[in-house]
Formats: sequence, structure tokens, C-alpha cells
Amino acid sequence: MTSITLYIAQQLVKRAIGGDDDLDDSPDITTPDDGEGEEDPVTEEIFSSWALFILLSLLCAALWSSYFLQQRRIKAIHETVLSIFYGMTVGLIIRVSPGHYIQDAVKFNSGYFFNILLPPIILNSGYELHQANFFSNIGSILTFAIPGTFISALVLGIILYIWTAIGFDGVKMEFVDALAVGATLSATDPVTILSIFNAYKVDPKLYTIIFGESLLNDAISIVMFETCQKFHGQQVRFSSLFEGIGIFLVTFTISTIIGIAIGILVALILKHSHIRRYPQIETCLVLLFSYESYFFSNGAHMSGIVSLLFCGITLKHYAYYNMSRRTQIATKYIFQLLAQLSENFIFIYLGLSLFTEVELVFKPLLIIITFISICVARWSAVFPLSRFLNFLYKAKFKEFTNRNFMNGGISSQAVPDEISHSYQMMIFWAGLRGAVGVALAMGLQGEAKWALLATVLVVVVLTVILFGGSTASMLEILGIKTGVEQHMDSDDEFDIEAPRLPISIQPTPFNSNNNLMGNRRFNNSRPGVYQDEIRSRNESSASLSSNKTPNMNDNIPDEDDDMISDGDDLISNFQTSSTENGVLGAFLSAEEHAKWFTRFDEEVLKPVLLDTIPKKDNDNSN
Amino acid sequence: MTSITLYIAQQLVKRAIGGDDDLDDSPDITTPDDGEGEEDPVTEEIFSSWALFILLSLLCAALWSSYFLQQRRIKAIHETVLSIFYGMTVGLIIRVSPGHYIQDAVKFNSGYFFNILLPPIILNSGYELHQANFFSNIGSILTFAIPGTFISALVLGIILYIWTAIGFDGVKMEFVDALAVGATLSATDPVTILSIFNAYKVDPKLYTIIFGESLLNDAISIVMFETCQKFHGQQVRFSSLFEGIGIFLVTFTISTIIGIAIGILVALILKHSHIRRYPQIETCLVLLFSYESYFFSNGAHMSGIVSLLFCGITLKHYAYYNMSRRTQIATKYIFQLLAQLSENFIFIYLGLSLFTEVELVFKPLLIIITFISICVARWSAVFPLSRFLNFLYKAKFKEFTNRNFMNGGISSQAVPDEISHSYQMMIFWAGLRGAVGVALAMGLQGEAKWALLATVLVVVVLTVILFGGSTASMLEILGIKTGVEQHMDSDDEFDIEAPRLPISIQPTPFNSNNNLMGNRRFNNSRPGVYQDEIRSRNESSASLSSNKTPNMNDNIPDEDDDMISDGDDLISNFQTSSTENGVLGAFLSAEEHAKWFTRFDEEVLKPVLLDTIPKKDNDNSN
Repeated sequence: MTSITLYIAQQLVKRAIGGDDDLDDSPDITTPDDGEGEEDPVTEEIFSSWALFILLSLLCAALWSSYFLQQRRIKAIHETVLSIFYGMTVGLIIRVSPGHYIQDAVKFNSGYFFNILLPPIILNSGYELHQANFFSNIGSILTFAIPGTFISALVLGIILYIWTAIGFDGVKMEFVDALAVGATLSATDPVTILSIFNAYKVDPKLYTIIFGESLLNDAISIVMFETCQKFHGQQVRFSSLFEGIGIFLVTFTISTIIGIAIGILVALILKHSHIRRYPQIETCLVLLFSYESYFFSNGAHMSGIVSLLFCGITLKHYAYYNMSRRTQIATKYIFQLLAQLSENFIFIYLGLSLFTEVELVFKPLLIIITFISICVARWSAVFPLSRFLNFLYKAKFKEFTNRNFMNGGISSQAVPDEISHSYQMMIFWAGLRGAVGVALAMGLQGEAKWALLATVLVVVVLTVILFGGSTASMLEILGIKTGVEQHMDSDDEFDIEAPRLPISIQPTPFNSNNNLMGNRRFNNSRPGVYQDEIRSRNESSASLSSNKTPNMNDNIPDEDDDMISDGDDLISNFQTSSTENGVLGAFLSAEEHAKWFTRFDEEVLKPVLLDTIPKKDNDNSN
Repeated sequence: MTSITLYIAQQLVKRAIGGDDDLDDSPDITTPDDGEGEEDPVTEEIFSSWALFILLSLLCAALWSSYFLQQRRIKAIHETVLSIFYGMTVGLIIRVSPGHYIQDAVKFNSGYFFNILLPPIILNSGYELHQANFFSNIGSILTFAIPGTFISALVLGIILYIWTAIGFDGVKMEFVDALAVGATLSATDPVTILSIFNAYKVDPKLYTIIFGESLLNDAISIVMFETCQKFHGQQVRFSSLFEGIGIFLVTFTISTIIGIAIGILVALILKHSHIRRYPQIETCLVLLFSYESYFFSNGAHMSGIVSLLFCGITLKHYAYYNMSRRTQIATKYIFQLLAQLSENFIFIYLGLSLFTEVELVFKPLLIIITFISICVARWSAVFPLSRFLNFLYKAKFKEFTNRNFMNGGISSQAVPDEISHSYQMMIFWAGLRGAVGVALAMGLQGEAKWALLATVLVVVVLTVILFGGSTASMLEILGIKTGVEQHMDSDDEFDIEAPRLPISIQPTPFNSNNNLMGNRRFNNSRPGVYQDEIRSRNESSASLSSNKTPNMNDNIPDEDDDMISDGDDLISNFQTSSTENGVLGAFLSAEEHAKWFTRFDEEVLKPVLLDTIPKKDNDNSN
């Protein structure tokens, strides 16, 4: 018996050190097309277990240091940078240690990235999105996202093409490939922005613009990349440009529709079934349907990111009120958890892949040039566009003041909503590149592939470390308002409305968000009936929520106080955004649209989509 | 513009129908060792998106029909059977449809199974385990799990070896391989049992025995399988048997220790840090650490299942009380969600793989023989062991009654705890085989591999369909008490203690469970101080929880009422289990052990591991 124990002990130690010798007692019988899956599961399990163990340990380390930094209020160094360094360190160790199994297992896999890591982040962004802020800044967001990304990709592409044409590094590529690389490197990263700006709780307007931009321009650069790939090896005609733009616009619209449609579908299912009596199944279905929107959209060559984002928003706007209380809480917590894990993991993954991607070919010069041209491209996107936006603001403000003298109205709250120079600078600085770029770069073709991939990877890591690491000091230098958000680290399970985004004004999301949401989603306009509207619905929601959980009453009052100022603020926001889109003429008619849509949302959509008496339903389900 | 729209539309339709033509514009550049990951991510994304879309749709269908069946109270047909049929149908469609990409993507991958699908189920089982029931039946559970699995594997192995030796099917294999197949087919399935028995809410004692057995014998058959694999191609000596047993015992013990150790580690971390102020991070860490236990254990050739199970139990016993309220709720919901998804998915996966595994070689005769011999093996494991247990019960009961006359004690609650014939029959019937067997069979070696894998797969599906499908009628025929559990479909977010397992007696898990837990985990004994103990701690927990959420008070009273009877019931349970293990002599000392350990748990472990004043900490964290 003891001898056996000894034998086992030896086995253990031997295995625990390095599993390679497992290969002896199990020949590798991989079938080409489904990778490691078909090996001897026992052996396979050992390696994947170690790989996963390492990754999870890294994740623990990252989360722990994130806690530590928050706890110690250390802002000089940021967790994301730490995560990357952890990843790099372990990646190096794995690289030098014998046996390629673990190394292969922890390689950056764009499939995993797009199908596992990205969706939770996008979904959570949509679900926790502060709709008021987002849709009141939709103009600036779209401006920076769409033309911004085009400009940046174009500039990058041209510079890279010229550089490679000179041919110092012996890297040769067509213009479309250069453009493709430009596209991959124009995707600013929602993950980084989210985590850094949440930590510093910057002024919501700035936050929303940067966050919204980074969220949307991933979608745009993906579409651009795909389009460029389509032209790979072909002759590029001038019409291609328009075709590309056409493809993008169609993709964006259809993706949005898919997302909203699925959100509404869920709302209807929840309303017209008794599934809320089985909250576990309900929660699963909500999660599954939102994922369906992502995968369907991707499968149909649309933008899954856009679909998922709008699906999340729609879910929160309609379906949320048809859910059982338990599902409301469960979805919130689960989406947050998944998002948090993915966010932390992505950085580790990037750090790891620097060393675990064996085929990479590093071209120092090319990397430097690319890094510089990124800054140039970002610069030439941000500043002209901000100037353009500011011009619109000014014009609109003149228009607006005139209007106010007509119906001596709410001029008091109306302030010129310009993007100050410090904000412009910050938007420029926030242009870190993220994992989306790397994942896209995996799909590059041609002999330059590995050089370009290496370049993209290094540049992305550099931007995150340099820009990300210096964001804190940048915020101070530019004197940007931070620490605005207050409810951040509450762990009371009843603040299921606690906004993820920092916001100075605190509307009751039950009301103003939806309302805004309703208004903004279909056209950007200005509801006249706003304040009474809010107040009435606020009371209803107060009573409603008190019926669910008495504890919520504690929050209601102060939120009530905010409501009026909020209402006004929103209105000024509306005016802003209604011309941010440059539709100066539509300003008068906007109000009509607003009234029309608010009525439509209240009298048609809500009754159709929501349980008219959510309280009662919740009682049923208990 | 319109022409472009048309073009896009065509693109969409073309792609949406069948993505195969994507291959034209992107050559496959797979590197052998990380499968699909390295392909052009855009193309790759399309295929994996469709694959995932299909799988998620199946999952939705399964969940929806599960809701429908529950809603309509249909018990004749069971959701798991439906899931398998859905899987088979879609599998067939995929098989006949052109293009092998999706087919490969949805193939049964034992790596995915062991690393993604299985852990959540085990973790949730441990976390939601009704510790009182489990540990009071530990004797029967272990008896059925350990010798039971050995017997069944041996019988199966011998029959198969003889059959193949005759050589009707031209399948040749060594005895160890036959034994390996026997091992794979001796893993009764926790998933099926959980889902079916939860649906019918059978008598807790029977439920616990069957569930516990199926949970543990997975671990045992895995170890047996690995051991057999080790002897593959070697000469089998008689000592090998003892070596195998030795390996198993060591594995089991060490795995348990790993699990408990990590659970305690988490408890200590939570206690000695302020991480509960950052509940999001806290929740992530709890989840990550429990997974670490699984992967570490697997990586070290121990049994991840056992580790994870005991890690879950320990977490619930100690760490749970150091968590922020939010994390308590979040962990519960998240574990449940993940488990539910995995459970439903596994059946779909099994159904799918019947058609998507192209290499399978079906040998009808072999399949029939195997199916019959499974029944024989199960039979020869269940009935002799039950008779053995009943003998112990009788002996113990005599012993017990004598004792009661000595100290005229609590004989009133003491009932002979025999396993009635109907229960034995049900235990036999509940021996469905599950995905664990299939996942293991993936690792079979030798030229017979594909024939054996096909056999295992078909047999598993057959058992699930036949036994699983007929469980309902079997329960009626045998007249077994069902519909015991009551809190099942409550969706009140405050019943975070709602037990997953059906139980007639309803202790406040805060108290009796832990206590029991404490007693049973280290030795199975009988606490004398039980009831006062329970009452005192119950009050504390009542006040504690009321401090957290007033709403909990609604639940407390009736639970209080249960406590006394519960306490007694537990005591009688104790007596049972203390001799179920056949340690008749230890019966007297058991009480001493109990007193000793209860004191130890209360005066040493709890103070060390728990926050002495959880209430206060929770206030901090709010």
C-alpha cells in the first residue's frame, strides 16, 4: 500500500512538473479539422487543464491587483497595464519552457475572441448603457465613429503603403492590404476606455463620446476590413470607395434593426408567456436570445457588435419590465460578471500572445513608423471633426437663442455644448487600440501577414501601455473633471439601476432613459411634454418598485429631486444633439417629431410591449 | 446607391444560405496544432457564428420546451429526451447539408465537455447540495459509488471481452481495453438524474443516494479508465488490481483535500480583505477560485470533479458568510444559470454527435450485447450492495434500540432506514449512462476505437431515452413518494437559500447544514448538542439576515418551526449513517467525536474562517 502511495506520489510530481511525458502513453490522434478536441481526452485534459489553470491564475492576479489598486487608491499605474505585463511575463515563461502544448493552448485565437470574449462586453455595455447620455451625444459619437474611422484608416493606409513602397523592411503589400491594416488599427478599444474611465469616473459627456465612439468604430473597422479583404488581389476602382461606404451603411442599419427586433421579440415573449414563473429558464432565455442576435448578425455578414449593442439597449428599455424580479437582478449580475472577466482577460491574452505567437516577424522600423502614423491618423481624425462639430454647435446655439426669445423658454439651462480643446486632446489621447485590431489582423493575407500581425500586436500593446498608462496624468494636466460618479462600488443588490457609466445628473432610469431612449432611437428630437411626463412616470415607477422591494424607496427621493433639473438638462441635451447631426433646419419640426414619437412610444409601443401592470405579474410569479 | 443595396442584399442571401463560398476569397491557412483558430478570422467567424447560432437555437428550443412541459404539467415525455431528439434532428440536417465546417464545429469535443460543460454542473451541485441529506446518506452513497462502480465495470468488461473474443463483429481488444470500456459505461450521469429527479421531486433520501452516487462514480470511472489506459499494451498482473485501487483511494483523498483547501482559502481571503467592498471583483474571484480547484486537480491527475464538488460544499459552508450580500446572490444565480445551460446543452450535444461524428463504425450486435450487459452489470452492482447495506441497517438498528434502553433517549425518531425493494429497483433504473462516458470513450485506443466509441455513444443515448423516458412511469409503478419539494419555482430573489434538491424536511441551511457539514466532512458522527445549537445559531442568522434584507423575515418563521423536528430527524439520520459505514463498534465513540468536532467547528474553525460579525461587514460594504 505504502509503495503504491509512493508510486502515486512520484506520478503526481512527475506530471505536475511537466505533462509532456504523457505523450508516451497516448499517441496524438488529432484529426486535422477540429484541432485538439480529438486527442486522447485524458492527455488532452491534462494540458488544457494546465493551460486553463494558468489563464485563470493570471485572471485572479489581475483582478486582485485591480482590487489592490482601487483599495490603495493608486492611480499612477493602471490595472490594464499590469494585466498586459502579467500576460507578457507568463507568456515568456511558457515560451522558454519545454513542450508546445500549453503554448498552443494559450495562443491568441481570434475565434475565441470574437465568440467568447467580445460579446459579454458589448452586451453589458448596451444593457448598462446610460441611455440619456448616449443618445443625447449620439451626434458627436456618430461623427467621430464613422467619418473619424474612415479618415484614420485612410491616413494610416496611405502612410503604410508609401513606407512599404520605399521598402526598407522588404515588406511588400498592395494598397488594399495597407488599407486593411489601417482599418484594423483604427478600431479604438471599448474595453480599455471602459475600464480606465470607469476607474477615474470622468465627466459623463466626455466619457460617453469616447466610449460610444470606441464601441461603434469597432463595428466600422470590421466592416472596412472585410471590404478591403474582398478587394484583395483585385484592381481597385474609384467606385469601390462608394461600394464600401454603401456596404457599411447597409450593414450598420440592418444590424441595428436585427438587434432591436430581437430585443422586442424577447419583450413580447416575456409578456405573453408565463415563463417568469420559471425565472431560471427565463434568465437563460434572455441571455441566449441576446447572444443569438450577435451570432445571427455575424453569420449574416452584418455587424454582431452593433446588433448586440442595440439588442442590449432594447432589452433594457422594454423587456426588462416584463422580467421577473429575480431575472432582472440575475441578468444584471451575470452580464456584469461576464463582462468583467472578459475585459480583464483580453489584456492578459494580448500580453501572452506577444510571446506565444511563434510565427511573428518583428520589424522594428515598421513598428515605429506605424506607431507614429497611428498618432498622425488619430490627430487628423479628431481635431478637424471637433472643429466641424463646434461649428455646428455655434450655429445651433445662435438658432436656439433666437428661438428662446420667441417663446421666452428654458434659455437658462441652455449652454453652448462645445467640445473644449482639453476634451479634444483627451479624445485624441483616448485613441488606444485594442484586441479587436489584433483579432482582425489575424485575417490578413499575403506574405507580409506575420510581419504585419507582429506590428499590429506590438503597436496595440504599446498604445495601451503608453496612452492607457498616462491617461491619469493626462486627465490632471488637461484639468478634466473626474470622480463624478458616486454609486460605483455599492454592493446593495437593490440598486439594480446603478448606472455603469459615471453621470453627474442622476435620472431615474425607469423613466427618462426609456423616454429619451424612445425618442433618440428612432429620430433625435425634443419632447415638449418632457417634465410632467417624467414626473408622472416617476411616481408610477416609485410605487411600482416599492411594490417589489421596499428598500428601493430609500433611493427614490433624492432621485426625485434630480428629476426636474435632469429634465431640463435633458432638454438642453436634446437641442444639442438635434443639431449635432447638422440638421439645423429640422430643429423646429424636431419638436413635433418628439411629441409624436413620445405619444407613439407611450400609447402604442409601451402598451404593446410592456406588461401594463408589472406589479401584478410579479406577484403571480412569486 | 440602390444598385449597391441590391448587391448587398444578394451578398446577404448568398451568405445566409450556405457560407461555403467564403472559402474562395480566403484560403484556409490552418496551422495543425490550434485548429480553427488560425484561419482567416472573418471566414472563420462566419462558420463558427452559424455553428454557435444553431447550438444556441437548439438550447432555446430545449429550454422553451422544458418550460412548456413544466407549464402544461406534462410528465409522460421528458425534456432531456426532447433535447436529444432536437440534437439528433439538427445533427442529421447538418450531416446531409453540404460543407463540413459547421459539422466539424458542432462535433462532440471532449475537451469542451470536460473544461466548459461539466464544471458548472458539479460546482452548482456542490454549492446547492443539501448537505444534511448528502452527508447523512454518505454511507450508502459511497457504497454504491465505489464498490458499485468497480463491480459494474468488471462485469461489463468481462462480458465484452468474452463477446469480442468470440469475434462475431471482428472487433478485437485486450482485457484492459474491455475493462476501460466497462469503466466508461459505469459512469452514471449526474446531469440526467439531477434534471429528471428535480422535475419529479422524488423522496429526498432516494434522490440523495442516486444523485450522490452518480456524482461520485463519474470520478471513479475516470480514475479507473485512466488506470486501464496505463496498462494498455502491457501485461496485466494481479497486483495491478491493488495498484488500481490504491491509485483510486489516493486520488479521491487528495482531490477532496484540494477542494476543501481552496474553499477554506477563499473563506480566509474574503475574511481578511476588504474585497467585499468591490462585489463585482469578489464574485469573479469566488468563481475563478472554484474553477482553479477543478483545473488544478485535473492537471495534477487528480479528480477535478471531486475537488470541485467539495470546494463548492466548503464555499457554501464557510466562505459564503464572508461574502457581501450581493456576491451571495450573484454566485447563486450565476452558478445556477451556468449549470442549467450546461445540463440542457449536454443532451443536445449527445444527440448531435450521433450524426456529426463521421468516423463512427456502428456494430448492431455489439451495441445490443453492450446494452444488455449494462443492465446485467448494474443489476449485479445494485442488488447485492443494497442487501449488504440493509444487513448493516438491521444490525445497527438492533444495536441502536439496545442503546436507547440504556439512556432511554430519542428512540421515538429512530426508524429502520432500510433501502426498500422499490428503492433498489429505482436505483437500478436510475443507472442511465451519460456524457462523461462518451467523453472518456473518446480516449480509447487501438483499432477498435471507432466501433467502441459508436457503441458507447448509442448505448448512452439509448439508456437516456429508455430509462430516462420511462422514469416517470417507473416512479408510479414502484409507488415512490414524489412531489416532495415545494420551493422549486419561486423567483423571489431573497430565497437565496432555496434548496436545489427536493427535501421534505426544510432546515435553515444557514445552520443545520453547516453543522452537519462540519460533522460529516471530517468524520461521520452524532452531535449531542444539536438542537440548542441549531436554535441559537438560527436566531443569530435570522437577525443577521433581517439586518441585510427585511424581506427575508417572511421566510424565517416557518423555517424556525421546522427546526426542532429537523434537528431530531437529523439525529436519526446520523445514527443511520454512523453505521451505514459498517463501523458498528465506533458507534459509542461516534457521539464523542461528534461533540468533539462540533465544539472544534464552533470554537476553532468558524471563528477562524468566518467573520464573527458578518452583519457589520456587510454594512461597511454597502
